[in-house]
Amino acid sequence: MNKTIATLPDIHSDSASHSKQSLRLWLRLLTCCNFVEKRVRLLLKTQFETTLPRFDVLAALEKEANGLSMSDLSQKLMVSNGNVTGVVSRLEEEGLLTKEPAPEDQRFNFVRLTAEGVKEFRRMAKAHEKWIDDMFGSISDSEIAKLLKMLDGVKESLQTYQKKR
Amino acid sequence: MNKTIATLPDIHSDSASHSKQSLRLWLRLLTCCNFVEKRVRLLLKTQFETTLPRFDVLAALEKEANGLSMSDLSQKLMVSNGNVTGVVSRLEEEGLLTKEPAPEDQRFNFVRLTAEGVKEFRRMAKAHEKWIDDMFGSISDSEIAKLLKMLDGVKESLQTYQKKR
Repeated sequence: MNKTIATLPDIHSDSASHSKQSLRLWLRLLTCCNFVEKRVRLLLKTQFETTLPRFDVLAALEKEANGLSMSDLSQKLMVSNGNVTGVVSRLEEEGLLTKEPAPEDQRFNFVRLTAEGVKEFRRMAKAHEKWIDDMFGSISDSEIAKLLKMLDGVKESLQTYQKKR
Repeated sequence: MNKTIATLPDIHSDSASHSKQSLRLWLRLLTCCNFVEKRVRLLLKTQFETTLPRFDVLAALEKEANGLSMSDLSQKLMVSNGNVTGVVSRLEEEGLLTKEPAPEDQRFNFVRLTAEGVKEFRRMAKAHEKWIDDMFGSISDSEIAKLLKMLDGVKESLQTYQKKR
């Protein structure tokens, strides 16, 4: 190798290192998320005979006392990619939610939880909170607080990225 | 409310706070992962006319010069939940991988990338690294290093949890 070139400072080294580090960060985030998600799917199945998409739909609706349009519901889902319409229909059949035309615009269906749906979700949410806490049990309160703050930075970076698109 | 009880220190307050903080941490991790994953799916589709499960299979195989059994491959996938067999068959038809009985045990198929598969993966991996770096572009090197260290703590907590099961 040409020694003169080899000893010149590499102007690309910083950005190369940043992209490798970014990739490591993404893979680490993904490993953690995959672990928790897989475990939550299993626990929902074994303890409540339900699925993550169903839990996800109930969770999104529980926050909205006035209900959501189908398209808003789809956008608010944290996990599901699947067939929201199918999941909603089955939850409706089971009496956990209602689907009715919106009072202000009859063209759109509004979905909202029934009292039974709220009750069912809260029963699962309580267990879900416990599962997550068991998984993150070895992380101290102050470490969690620090991580939340740093993940705010990640979220901001993603928002900045999105604005540029 | 009974004032005597209300003024007693709440012995559950720490653990209650920990479980709420754990839940916040999980939702924050999930938000970040969902954003990146959704974007990567879109970019793979628009720039390479491919899918995340395909990319994921190629990525897992690229690290294994000697190939992987189908079951080891399934376990190593970072993202895909779907039909690994179907994805592998299509990649085989396209000449990106080979599926042959393992020399040491003919009952098991070993999957490995062809030279063409390696080339194709590296082309996509280069773009993928750039996309991730763009998304994490506003996070400094030192912040990433700190985050990686803290996420090691999360990973350890998840491993501790798994060992107890």
